[in-house]
Amino acid sequence: MKKVAVILAGSGVYDGSEINEVVLTLLHIAKNGGAYQCFAPDIEQLHTINHLTGDVMPDKRNVLTEAARIARGDIKSLIDLDVAQFDALIVPGGFGAAKNLCDFAIKGTKANINQDVLNTCKAFAKAKKPAGYMCIAPALIPFIYDNAQLTIGNDVDTAQALSTLGAKHINCAVDDVVIDEANKLVTTPAYMLAQSILDADVGIAKLVTSVLTMN
Amino acid sequence: MKKVAVILAGSGVYDGSEINEVVLTLLHIAKNGGAYQCFAPDIEQLHTINHLTGDVMPDKRNVLTEAARIARGDIKSLIDLDVAQFDALIVPGGFGAAKNLCDFAIKGTKANINQDVLNTCKAFAKAKKPAGYMCIAPALIPFIYDNAQLTIGNDVDTAQALSTLGAKHINCAVDDVVIDEANKLVTTPAYMLAQSILDADVGIAKLVTSVLTMN
Repeated sequence: MKKVAVILAGSGVYDGSEINEVVLTLLHIAKNGGAYQCFAPDIEQLHTINHLTGDVMPDKRNVLTEAARIARGDIKSLIDLDVAQFDALIVPGGFGAAKNLCDFAIKGTKANINQDVLNTCKAFAKAKKPAGYMCIAPALIPFIYDNAQLTIGNDVDTAQALSTLGAKHINCAVDDVVIDEANKLVTTPAYMLAQSILDADVGIAKLVTSVLTMN
Repeated sequence: MKKVAVILAGSGVYDGSEINEVVLTLLHIAKNGGAYQCFAPDIEQLHTINHLTGDVMPDKRNVLTEAARIARGDIKSLIDLDVAQFDALIVPGGFGAAKNLCDFAIKGTKANINQDVLNTCKAFAKAKKPAGYMCIAPALIPFIYDNAQLTIGNDVDTAQALSTLGAKHINCAVDDVVIDEANKLVTTPAYMLAQSILDADVGIAKLVTSVLTMN
Protein backbone atom coordinates (compact mmCIF):
# COMPACT_ATOMS: atom_id res chain seq x y z
CA MET A 1 0.00 0.00 0.00
CA LYS A 2 1.43 3.38 -1.06
CA LYS A 3 1.59 5.96 1.72
CA VAL A 4 0.97 9.56 0.72
CA ALA A 5 1.78 12.66 2.73
CA VAL A 6 -0.75 15.44 2.05
CA ILE A 7 0.30 18.98 3.00
CA LEU A 8 -2.57 21.32 3.88
CA ALA A 9 -2.55 25.10 4.22
CA GLY A 10 -5.65 25.80 6.35
CA SER A 11 -9.33 25.19 5.56
CA GLY A 12 -11.11 27.29 2.93
CA VAL A 13 -10.31 28.38 -0.61
CA TYR A 14 -9.59 32.05 0.11
CA ASP A 15 -7.18 31.75 3.05
CA GLY A 16 -6.41 28.03 3.33
CA SER A 17 -6.62 24.78 1.39
CA GLU A 18 -9.45 24.42 -1.10
CA ILE A 19 -11.74 22.03 0.76
CA ASN A 20 -13.20 20.18 -2.24
CA GLU A 21 -9.69 19.59 -3.61
CA VAL A 22 -8.50 18.13 -0.31
CA VAL A 23 -11.47 15.78 0.14
CA LEU A 24 -11.31 14.62 -3.49
CA THR A 25 -7.57 14.03 -3.09
CA LEU A 26 -8.13 11.88 0.01
CA LEU A 27 -11.01 10.04 -1.69
CA HIS A 28 -8.92 9.16 -4.74
CA ILE A 29 -5.90 8.10 -2.69
CA ALA A 30 -8.21 5.69 -0.84
CA LYS A 31 -9.91 4.54 -4.07
CA ASN A 32 -6.44 3.74 -5.49
CA GLY A 33 -5.73 1.55 -2.46
CA GLY A 34 -3.35 4.06 -0.89
CA ALA A 35 -3.10 5.43 2.64
CA TYR A 36 -2.64 9.06 3.61
CA GLN A 37 -1.55 11.26 6.47
CA CYS A 38 -2.28 14.99 6.48
CA PHE A 39 0.25 17.57 7.66
CA ALA A 40 0.26 21.36 7.93
CA PRO A 41 2.71 23.96 9.18
CA ASP A 42 2.05 25.11 12.75
CA ILE A 43 2.03 28.83 11.84
CA GLU A 44 -0.42 31.71 11.84
CA GLN A 45 -2.42 32.19 8.63
CA LEU A 46 -1.53 35.26 6.55
CA HIS A 47 -5.06 36.44 7.27
CA THR A 48 -8.64 35.21 7.71
CA ILE A 49 -11.12 35.80 4.91
CA ASN A 50 -14.89 35.83 5.43
CA HIS A 51 -15.84 33.33 2.70
CA LEU A 52 -19.36 34.77 2.48
CA THR A 53 -18.33 38.39 1.79
CA GLY A 54 -14.68 38.17 0.74
CA ASP A 55 -13.71 40.67 3.46
CA VAL A 56 -10.69 40.30 5.72
CA MET A 57 -11.74 39.37 9.28
CA PRO A 58 -9.87 40.39 12.45
CA ASP A 59 -9.44 36.73 13.51
CA LYS A 60 -5.95 35.30 13.98
CA ARG A 61 -6.12 31.64 12.96
CA ASN A 62 -3.50 28.89 12.89
CA VAL A 63 -2.88 26.91 9.69
CA LEU A 64 -2.50 23.53 11.43
CA THR A 65 -5.51 24.05 13.72
CA GLU A 66 -7.80 25.06 10.86
CA ALA A 67 -6.51 22.34 8.52
CA ALA A 68 -7.42 19.84 11.27
CA ARG A 69 -11.07 20.57 10.43
CA ILE A 70 -10.78 18.87 7.04
CA ALA A 71 -8.69 16.02 8.48
CA ARG A 72 -11.16 15.35 11.34
CA GLY A 73 -8.30 16.00 13.79
CA ASP A 74 -6.05 13.35 12.21
CA ILE A 75 -3.25 15.70 11.19
CA LYS A 76 0.35 16.34 12.27
CA SER A 77 2.62 19.33 12.33
CA LEU A 78 4.70 19.58 9.16
CA ILE A 79 7.95 19.43 11.14
CA ASP A 80 7.01 15.88 12.16
CA LEU A 81 6.83 14.70 8.54
CA ASP A 82 9.50 12.01 8.05
CA VAL A 83 9.89 11.71 4.29
CA ALA A 84 11.35 8.21 4.64
CA GLN A 85 7.94 7.00 5.88
CA PHE A 86 6.10 8.04 2.69
CA ASP A 87 6.06 6.99 -0.95
CA ALA A 88 4.67 10.22 -2.37
CA LEU A 89 3.58 13.78 -1.65
CA ILE A 90 0.44 15.66 -2.72
CA VAL A 91 -0.22 19.37 -2.14
CA PRO A 92 -3.80 20.54 -2.83
CA GLY A 93 -4.48 24.14 -3.80
CA GLY A 94 -6.52 27.03 -2.50
CA PHE A 95 -5.06 30.46 -1.80
CA GLY A 96 -3.52 29.13 1.41
CA ALA A 97 -0.89 27.37 -0.72
CA ALA A 98 0.13 30.80 -2.06
CA LYS A 99 -0.49 32.76 1.17
CA ASN A 100 0.64 30.42 3.97
CA LEU A 101 2.99 27.84 2.42
CA CYS A 102 4.62 30.62 0.38
CA ASP A 103 3.64 34.23 -0.29
CA PHE A 104 3.30 34.05 -4.08
CA ALA A 105 -0.27 35.41 -3.89
CA ILE A 106 1.10 38.64 -2.39
CA LYS A 107 4.61 38.99 -3.83
CA GLY A 108 4.47 37.14 -7.18
CA THR A 109 7.97 36.75 -8.60
CA LYS A 110 9.44 38.20 -5.37
CA ALA A 111 7.84 35.41 -3.33
CA ASN A 112 9.47 33.46 -0.53
CA ILE A 113 8.59 29.95 0.61
CA ASN A 114 8.14 28.78 4.20
CA GLN A 115 11.39 27.10 5.23
CA ASP A 116 9.78 23.92 6.62
CA VAL A 117 7.67 23.54 3.47
CA LEU A 118 10.81 24.00 1.37
CA ASN A 119 12.83 21.47 3.37
CA THR A 120 10.08 18.85 3.26
CA CYS A 121 9.18 19.23 -0.40
CA LYS A 122 12.86 19.27 -1.41
CA ALA A 123 13.41 16.07 0.55
CA PHE A 124 10.70 14.35 -1.51
CA ALA A 125 12.31 15.70 -4.69
CA LYS A 126 15.81 14.62 -3.64
CA ALA A 127 14.54 11.13 -2.75
CA LYS A 128 13.01 10.93 -6.25
CA LYS A 129 9.58 10.26 -4.74
CA PRO A 130 6.60 11.27 -6.90
CA ALA A 131 4.77 14.48 -6.04
CA GLY A 132 1.50 16.06 -7.16
CA TYR A 133 0.64 19.76 -6.87
CA MET A 134 -2.75 21.11 -7.92
CA CYS A 135 -4.50 24.43 -8.55
CA ILE A 136 -2.18 27.28 -7.38
CA ALA A 137 0.08 24.95 -5.33
CA PRO A 138 2.47 24.61 -8.34
CA ALA A 139 3.57 28.16 -7.39
CA LEU A 140 5.74 26.33 -4.83
CA ILE A 141 7.49 24.23 -7.47
CA PRO A 142 10.10 26.72 -8.79
CA PHE A 143 11.50 26.93 -5.24
CA ILE A 144 11.79 23.14 -5.01
CA TYR A 145 12.71 21.82 -8.46
CA ASP A 146 15.08 23.00 -11.18
CA ASN A 147 13.68 23.18 -14.70
CA ALA A 148 10.29 21.79 -13.74
CA GLN A 149 7.42 21.46 -16.20
CA LEU A 150 4.11 22.33 -14.60
CA THR A 151 0.64 23.79 -15.12
CA ILE A 152 -1.64 26.15 -13.27
CA GLY A 153 -4.19 25.95 -16.11
CA ASN A 154 -3.97 28.79 -18.60
CA ASP A 155 -3.83 32.09 -16.66
CA VAL A 156 -1.31 34.16 -18.61
CA ASP A 157 -0.03 36.36 -15.77
CA THR A 158 0.41 33.51 -13.29
CA ALA A 159 2.07 31.33 -15.93
CA GLN A 160 4.43 34.19 -16.81
CA ALA A 161 5.36 34.70 -13.15
CA LEU A 162 6.18 31.01 -12.76
CA SER A 163 8.27 31.13 -15.92
CA THR A 164 10.18 34.10 -14.49
CA LEU A 165 10.83 31.99 -11.38
CA GLY A 166 12.38 29.31 -13.60
CA ALA A 167 9.63 26.78 -14.36
CA LYS A 168 8.29 25.82 -17.78
CA HIS A 169 4.53 26.39 -17.86
CA ILE A 170 2.34 24.22 -20.06
CA ASN A 171 -1.31 25.13 -20.63
CA CYS A 172 -3.59 22.31 -19.50
CA ALA A 173 -7.33 21.58 -19.49
CA VAL A 174 -9.13 21.03 -16.19
CA ASP A 175 -9.62 17.31 -16.90
CA ASP A 176 -5.96 16.66 -17.63
CA VAL A 177 -2.54 16.67 -15.95
CA VAL A 178 0.97 17.76 -16.89
CA ILE A 179 3.56 15.10 -16.08
CA ASP A 180 7.22 16.03 -15.68
CA GLU A 181 8.77 12.56 -15.87
CA ALA A 182 12.30 13.70 -15.04
CA ASN A 183 11.20 15.31 -11.79
CA LYS A 184 8.41 12.76 -11.06
CA LEU A 185 6.07 15.69 -10.80
CA VAL A 186 2.35 15.83 -11.65
CA THR A 187 0.24 19.01 -11.79
CA THR A 188 -3.41 19.72 -12.65
CA PRO A 189 -5.43 22.97 -12.77
CA ALA A 190 -8.28 21.87 -10.45
CA TYR A 191 -10.14 25.00 -9.24
CA MET A 192 -7.87 27.31 -11.24
CA LEU A 193 -10.23 26.24 -14.05
CA ALA A 194 -12.94 24.00 -12.61
CA GLN A 195 -16.48 25.25 -13.13
CA SER A 196 -17.97 22.44 -11.06
CA ILE A 197 -17.02 19.75 -8.58
CA LEU A 198 -17.20 17.23 -11.44
CA ASP A 199 -14.54 19.18 -13.34
CA ALA A 200 -12.29 19.19 -10.29
CA ASP A 201 -12.92 15.52 -9.61
CA VAL A 202 -11.75 14.34 -13.04
CA GLY A 203 -8.41 16.17 -12.98
CA ILE A 204 -7.69 15.33 -9.34
CA ALA A 205 -8.49 11.65 -9.94
CA LYS A 206 -5.99 11.70 -12.82
CA LEU A 207 -3.34 13.43 -10.72
CA VAL A 208 -3.68 11.01 -7.81
CA THR A 209 -3.59 7.94 -10.06
CA SER A 210 -0.57 9.34 -11.91
CA VAL A 211 1.30 10.00 -8.67
CA LEU A 212 0.47 6.59 -7.19
CA THR A 213 1.43 4.62 -10.30
CA MET A 214 4.71 6.47 -10.90
CA ASN A 215 7.80 4.46 -10.02
CA MET B 1 -32.32 18.32 -13.64
CA LYS B 2 -33.23 17.79 -9.98
CA LYS B 3 -32.38 20.73 -7.73
CA VAL B 4 -31.27 19.89 -4.21
CA ALA B 5 -31.09 22.26 -1.24
CA VAL B 6 -28.24 21.30 1.10
CA ILE B 7 -28.39 22.69 4.65
CA LEU B 8 -25.01 23.16 6.33
CA ALA B 9 -24.24 23.78 10.01
CA GLY B 10 -20.74 25.29 9.89
CA SER B 11 -17.44 23.76 8.74
CA GLY B 12 -15.79 21.01 10.75
CA VAL B 13 -16.97 17.77 12.35
CA TYR B 14 -16.82 18.87 16.00
CA ASP B 15 -18.68 22.21 15.80
CA GLY B 16 -20.10 22.37 12.28
CA SER B 17 -20.88 20.19 9.27
CA GLU B 18 -18.66 17.17 8.69
CA ILE B 19 -16.59 18.37 5.75
CA ASN B 20 -16.07 15.04 3.99
CA GLU B 21 -19.81 14.33 4.18
CA VAL B 22 -20.65 17.67 2.61
CA VAL B 23 -18.16 17.36 -0.26
CA LEU B 24 -19.19 13.76 -0.98
CA THR B 25 -22.84 14.85 -0.94
CA LEU B 26 -22.17 17.62 -3.47
CA LEU B 27 -20.06 15.26 -5.60
CA HIS B 28 -22.77 12.61 -5.76
CA ILE B 29 -25.53 15.13 -6.48
CA ALA B 30 -23.45 16.30 -9.45
CA LYS B 31 -22.62 12.73 -10.54
CA ASN B 32 -26.36 11.98 -10.53
CA GLY B 33 -26.94 14.90 -12.88
CA GLY B 34 -28.46 17.09 -10.17
CA ALA B 35 -27.80 20.68 -9.18
CA TYR B 36 -27.38 21.99 -5.65
CA GLN B 37 -27.51 25.16 -3.60
CA CYS B 38 -26.06 25.30 -0.10
CA PHE B 39 -27.80 27.14 2.76
CA ALA B 40 -27.01 27.69 6.43
CA PRO B 41 -28.65 29.58 9.29
CA ASP B 42 -27.15 33.02 9.91
CA ILE B 43 -26.58 32.40 13.63
CA GLU B 44 -23.66 32.13 16.02
CA GLN B 45 -22.20 28.64 16.48
CA LEU B 46 -22.84 26.98 19.87
CA HIS B 47 -19.05 27.09 20.33
CA THR B 48 -15.78 26.73 18.44
CA ILE B 49 -13.76 23.53 18.87
CA ASN B 50 -10.03 23.32 18.17
CA HIS B 51 -10.09 20.29 15.85
CA LEU B 52 -6.44 19.49 16.65
CA THR B 53 -6.86 19.27 20.44
CA GLY B 54 -10.61 18.95 21.00
CA ASP B 55 -10.56 21.98 23.32
CA VAL B 56 -13.15 24.76 23.25
CA MET B 57 -11.68 27.95 21.76
CA PRO B 58 -12.74 31.48 22.76
CA ASP B 59 -13.66 32.36 19.15
CA LYS B 60 -17.21 33.39 18.31
CA ARG B 61 -17.96 32.11 14.81
CA ASN B 62 -21.04 32.33 12.60
CA VAL B 63 -22.60 29.19 11.13
CA LEU B 64 -23.31 30.72 7.71
CA THR B 65 -19.90 32.41 7.42
CA GLU B 66 -17.99 29.23 8.31
CA ALA B 67 -20.20 27.01 6.13
CA ALA B 68 -19.31 29.34 3.24
CA ARG B 69 -15.79 27.86 3.38
CA ILE B 70 -17.03 24.47 2.14
CA ALA B 71 -19.32 26.08 -0.43
CA ARG B 72 -16.55 28.34 -1.82
CA GLY B 73 -18.75 31.33 -0.95
CA ASP B 74 -21.72 30.04 -2.96
CA ILE B 75 -24.15 29.77 -0.07
CA LYS B 76 -27.30 31.57 1.07
CA SER B 77 -28.91 32.29 4.39
CA LEU B 78 -31.43 29.63 5.34
CA ILE B 79 -34.24 32.18 5.57
CA ASP B 80 -33.83 32.72 1.80
CA LEU B 81 -34.54 29.08 1.01
CA ASP B 82 -37.72 28.92 -1.10
CA VAL B 83 -38.82 25.29 -0.91
CA ALA B 84 -40.84 25.67 -4.13
CA GLN B 85 -37.57 26.12 -6.04
CA PHE B 86 -36.16 22.73 -5.02
CA ASP B 87 -36.97 19.06 -5.65
CA ALA B 88 -35.26 17.64 -2.58
CA LEU B 89 -33.38 18.41 0.63
CA ILE B 90 -30.18 16.88 2.04
CA VAL B 91 -28.74 17.58 5.49
CA PRO B 92 -25.16 16.30 6.06
CA GLY B 93 -23.99 15.50 9.58
CA GLY B 94 -21.20 16.58 11.89
CA PHE B 95 -21.83 17.79 15.44
CA GLY B 96 -23.01 21.13 14.05
CA ALA B 97 -26.26 19.42 13.03
CA ALA B 98 -26.83 18.57 16.71
CA LYS B 99 -25.27 21.75 18.18
CA ASN B 100 -26.32 24.53 15.80
CA LEU B 101 -29.37 23.29 13.86
CA CYS B 102 -30.75 21.83 17.08
CA ASP B 103 -29.21 21.22 20.52
CA PHE B 104 -29.61 17.45 20.69
CA ALA B 105 -25.86 17.02 21.36
CA ILE B 106 -26.28 18.99 24.59
CA LYS B 107 -29.84 18.30 25.70
CA GLY B 108 -30.67 14.87 24.25
CA THR B 109 -34.37 14.13 24.64
CA LYS B 110 -34.93 17.68 25.97
CA ALA B 111 -33.58 19.17 22.73
CA ASN B 112 -35.03 22.08 20.81
CA ILE B 113 -34.68 22.77 17.10
CA ASN B 114 -33.82 26.09 15.49
CA GLN B 115 -37.11 27.63 14.31
CA ASP B 116 -35.92 28.44 10.77
CA VAL B 117 -34.53 24.93 10.37
CA LEU B 118 -37.83 23.52 11.58
CA ASN B 119 -39.91 25.68 9.27
CA THR B 120 -37.79 24.84 6.23
CA CYS B 121 -37.50 21.12 6.82
CA LYS B 122 -41.21 20.86 7.64
CA ALA B 123 -42.03 22.64 4.38
CA PHE B 124 -40.11 19.96 2.44
CA ALA B 125 -41.96 17.26 4.38
CA LYS B 126 -45.35 18.91 3.85
CA ALA B 127 -44.65 19.27 0.11
CA LYS B 128 -43.84 15.52 0.02
CA LYS B 129 -40.40 16.28 -1.41
CA PRO B 130 -37.71 13.65 -0.71
CA ALA B 131 -35.17 14.39 2.00
CA GLY B 132 -31.90 12.78 3.08
CA TYR B 133 -30.32 13.16 6.52
CA MET B 134 -26.97 11.57 7.36
CA CYS B 135 -24.74 10.86 10.37
CA ILE B 136 -26.22 12.65 13.43
CA ALA B 137 -28.50 14.93 11.35
CA PRO B 138 -31.38 12.43 11.76
CA ALA B 139 -31.60 13.83 15.32
CA LEU B 140 -33.59 16.63 13.64
CA ILE B 141 -36.15 14.23 12.19
CA PRO B 142 -38.43 13.65 15.24
CA PHE B 143 -39.12 17.40 15.30
CA ILE B 144 -40.09 17.41 11.62
CA TYR B 145 -41.86 14.11 10.84
CA ASP B 146 -44.36 12.00 12.72
CA ASN B 147 -43.61 8.28 13.04
CA ALA B 148 -40.44 8.47 10.97
CA GLN B 149 -38.17 5.48 10.39
CA LEU B 150 -34.52 6.46 10.49
CA THR B 151 -30.98 5.38 11.34
CA ILE B 152 -27.99 6.91 13.07
CA GLY B 153 -26.07 3.64 12.71
CA ASN B 154 -26.17 1.44 15.80
CA ASP B 155 -25.32 3.61 18.83
CA VAL B 156 -27.69 2.35 21.52
CA ASP B 157 -27.98 5.53 23.60
CA THR B 158 -28.53 7.83 20.62
CA ALA B 159 -31.02 5.42 19.08
CA GLN B 160 -32.92 5.23 22.39
CA ALA B 161 -33.05 9.02 22.66
CA LEU B 162 -34.49 9.29 19.15
CA SER B 163 -37.05 6.61 19.99
CA THR B 164 -38.05 8.60 23.07
CA LEU B 165 -38.54 11.62 20.79
CA GLY B 166 -40.95 9.54 18.68
CA ALA B 167 -38.94 8.10 15.80
CA LYS B 168 -38.43 4.43 15.00
CA HIS B 169 -34.72 3.67 14.89
CA ILE B 170 -33.42 0.92 12.61
CA ASN B 171 -29.81 -0.28 12.90
CA CYS B 172 -27.98 0.17 9.62
CA ALA B 173 -24.51 -0.60 8.24
CA VAL B 174 -22.29 2.24 7.02
CA ASP B 175 -22.66 1.19 3.38
CA ASP B 176 -26.44 1.13 3.47
CA VAL B 177 -29.45 3.43 3.92
CA VAL B 178 -32.78 3.29 5.70
CA ILE B 179 -35.66 4.36 3.48
CA ASP B 180 -38.94 5.55 4.98
CA GLU B 181 -41.14 5.41 1.89
CA ALA B 182 -44.18 6.98 3.55
CA ASN B 183 -42.25 10.07 4.58
CA LYS B 184 -39.91 10.06 1.52
CA LEU B 185 -37.04 10.07 3.94
CA VAL B 186 -33.58 8.52 3.51
CA THR B 187 -30.94 8.22 6.25
CA THR B 188 -27.44 6.72 6.39
CA PRO B 189 -24.88 6.44 9.22
CA ALA B 190 -21.92 8.07 7.38
CA TYR B 191 -19.31 9.11 9.99
CA MET B 192 -21.41 7.78 12.87
CA LEU B 193 -19.84 4.49 11.72
CA ALA B 194 -17.41 5.21 8.87
CA GLN B 195 -13.85 4.10 9.53
CA SER B 196 -12.59 5.62 6.30
CA ILE B 197 -13.58 8.05 3.57
CA LEU B 198 -14.41 5.03 1.37
CA ASP B 199 -16.94 3.82 3.97
CA ALA B 200 -18.56 7.25 4.04
CA ASP B 201 -18.54 7.53 0.26
CA VAL B 202 -20.51 4.32 -0.32
CA GLY B 203 -23.35 5.17 2.07
CA ILE B 204 -23.57 8.80 0.99
CA ALA B 205 -23.63 7.78 -2.69
CA LYS B 206 -26.53 5.46 -1.90
CA LEU B 207 -28.39 8.16 0.06
CA VAL B 208 -28.01 10.75 -2.70
CA THR B 209 -29.09 8.34 -5.43
CA SER B 210 -32.07 7.23 -3.33
CA VAL B 211 -33.17 10.82 -2.71
CA LEU B 212 -32.76 11.85 -6.35
CA THR B 213 -34.61 8.84 -7.76
CA MET B 214 -37.52 9.05 -5.29
CA ASN B 215 -40.74 10.34 -6.81
